[in-house]
Amino acid sequence: MIPVEEALERILAGLSPTGAETVALAEGWGRILAHPVTARLTQPPTDVSAMDGYAVRVEDAGVGARLRVIGASPAGHPFSGRVGPGEAVRIFTGGALPAGADTVLLQEDAAAEDGHVRPTEAPRPGRHIRRAGLDFATGDTLLPAGRRLTARDIGLAAAANHPWLQVHRRPRIGILATGDEISLPGDPIPPGGIVSSNAHALAALVRAAGGEPLVLPIAADDRDAIAGAAEAARRCDLLVTTGGASVGEHDLVQAALGPQGFALDFWKIAMRPGKPLIWGDLRGTPLLGLPGNPVSALVCAVLFLIPATRRLSGLPAGPVETRPALLGREMPANDRRQDYVRAELSQDAAGALVATPFAVQDSSMLRTMAAAGALILRRPHAPAAPAGSAVEVVELSSLGV
Amino acid sequence: MIPVEEALERILAGLSPTGAETVALAEGWGRILAHPVTARLTQPPTDVSAMDGYAVRVEDAGVGARLRVIGASPAGHPFSGRVGPGEAVRIFTGGALPAGADTVLLQEDAAAEDGHVRPTEAPRPGRHIRRAGLDFATGDTLLPAGRRLTARDIGLAAAANHPWLQVHRRPRIGILATGDEISLPGDPIPPGGIVSSNAHALAALVRAAGGEPLVLPIAADDRDAIAGAAEAARRCDLLVTTGGASVGEHDLVQAALGPQGFALDFWKIAMRPGKPLIWGDLRGTPLLGLPGNPVSALVCAVLFLIPATRRLSGLPAGPVETRPALLGREMPANDRRQDYVRAELSQDAAGALVATPFAVQDSSMLRTMAAAGALILRRPHAPAAPAGSAVEVVELSSLGV
Repeated sequence: MIPVEEALERILAGLSPTGAETVALAEGWGRILAHPVTARLTQPPTDVSAMDGYAVRVEDAGVGARLRVIGASPAGHPFSGRVGPGEAVRIFTGGALPAGADTVLLQEDAAAEDGHVRPTEAPRPGRHIRRAGLDFATGDTLLPAGRRLTARDIGLAAAANHPWLQVHRRPRIGILATGDEISLPGDPIPPGGIVSSNAHALAALVRAAGGEPLVLPIAADDRDAIAGAAEAARRCDLLVTTGGASVGEHDLVQAALGPQGFALDFWKIAMRPGKPLIWGDLRGTPLLGLPGNPVSALVCAVLFLIPATRRLSGLPAGPVETRPALLGREMPANDRRQDYVRAELSQDAAGALVATPFAVQDSSMLRTMAAAGALILRRPHAPAAPAGSAVEVVELSSLGV
Repeated sequence: MIPVEEALERILAGLSPTGAETVALAEGWGRILAHPVTARLTQPPTDVSAMDGYAVRVEDAGVGARLRVIGASPAGHPFSGRVGPGEAVRIFTGGALPAGADTVLLQEDAAAEDGHVRPTEAPRPGRHIRRAGLDFATGDTLLPAGRRLTARDIGLAAAANHPWLQVHRRPRIGILATGDEISLPGDPIPPGGIVSSNAHALAALVRAAGGEPLVLPIAADDRDAIAGAAEAARRCDLLVTTGGASVGEHDLVQAALGPQGFALDFWKIAMRPGKPLIWGDLRGTPLLGLPGNPVSALVCAVLFLIPATRRLSGLPAGPVETRPALLGREMPANDRRQDYVRAELSQDAAGALVATPFAVQDSSMLRTMAAAGALILRRPHAPAAPAGSAVEVVELSSLGV
């Protein structure tokens, strides 16, 4: 059995980001930049007013002066003339500062009268002016490669005049559920069989992590079926299997895939739930074999498939993020396996995050998994922890999982 | 000027959830349930083994006994016979407990030999058995209406045998940018004009919040254009406008829409950035008028458009969530407007979240907005706050914004 951290390192080391594709700016949200976005223009393009008022020459604009208003400069409609001695131009927020003017007299510091304006407060030089390039200048790198694009980023790329973006292709992740006792929802259920929940839960998780899931037909628990389905997944960036619940399921996947050129890296991890986990390479396609148990499959997917999908998508490689929380009730000492304990999240009176483990953690209980706000991470050999202890948690809903 | 909280209440009070649509389970991720998901079967359907071992009668299975193995019960393939005196059935995790057996003898507590098995440790009654319905029973409500479906929920709905889900239709949100000085990225830019960033940033924000954006053609700053575009948005669940930067932009939107039957509710909010905000009703279509300034538009969208989209989507009505954080540097006392200050997020040595405001907060700086991890919320008249003070922040990237 190898530790969780080592398993993740070995998985991530075997994966490379997908290549780039061009998408319309409007389709860029949530995608990962493959190339930086640089500014194609300067913003603001020229000095502009930060307020509504009058563009004036500071030397003319003492209290009591009377300036002739010779034009207006609203945003987008620059005044083409020049502010000469004794003159002013009406200006609005975002309007270009006309030639000759060196400050902005605020509207509330001015009295307008009959084509003229009188300062009631003397402006200081250079006030209320946004200088050209205050936001960015042509050539500035605005968004780095490897960034997941937010709505704000889309706005910034638009402002920098990009109708198109170069993003990483969404990694295509094949999902192969095995087992002759499982059916898809709504299909006839064989006697003693169960409805398969893994494939579509994992597909949703892949989507949440930015990948493109490809749900393969269920493969019965025999070598030919598994080998055939694996063949169909050759165009995937990653193939994920989830075992049937039959005996020796992992041996079966390995035995079925071995003749197809499967090279095993490891297959046991010191964690709970989810000890049996296959990692290897199927003739150039990385293969992640998850347990068949739905809770184990989901926990392993959070810990390994989300980081793998992110890595393939061009995001930085690393574990899923954890947050500090306080234990809502005591927990016993842990054994040598790293434990991921389903817990409810709440806030205490001081606003701190509290994680309370569910009393029953049986790994067959998918309902408890769906109800959990977080997984409490318990390190191997962690001592007993009283209520109120600091723990690390993996928050599930913020992962979309 | 009305307070932010009151503005949000008035906005949410004017909105109702969309109706339901049927989607395939595989398309359900991230959608909001319109009807509860109830279990269509019992899981596990019968008592099953929680471990690999032997199904036995506890009275027969003392240490030293020799039990005849009469069959096997792997998951999905129940043993059809009955365990009689002196008999055992090989059983695997998830396999149905055969009739007659009342406990599971663990594999590691048994010595197999020649069609027989000898307990090396006596089993206790009823051990290692998952009772029928441990996870859920037919008719149980598994997922409530109004829930945003996670990957785990998709798995649970699958396990409960639902190929289809009833979810709220994604609200269609029209986005109308106004202003004769703005162009779309890549289009020719008029002299003195700027590239429009609002429409596509807001479209991405709507998508992040679960809505379906409809980006309308830019309307020039005149009444006919705005009224015409508004007419085109009549089939939307909500129309969002963002003003041009010209003088009296909000008067213009109001003046243009008034003859179309627009009824204003309010239009000034005690906040910064983003004081001018229109809320009203355009012949049955709610209308939210955001400022034209990109930073103000985005901040107002986070505070009002995300909750509005969620409310229309069938999620509970309420403000966007805030988190506690510590100030990374001192902040001055606030005036009567509620302030939303762009800040960088980091963690201190103890793992606490630290929010450090950017030194320059000019509302024209979209780049600072894109770089911000959070908005620090400063209440009206908040006193000066030293570094290390507790503050509330709106985390932006976790909103997908």
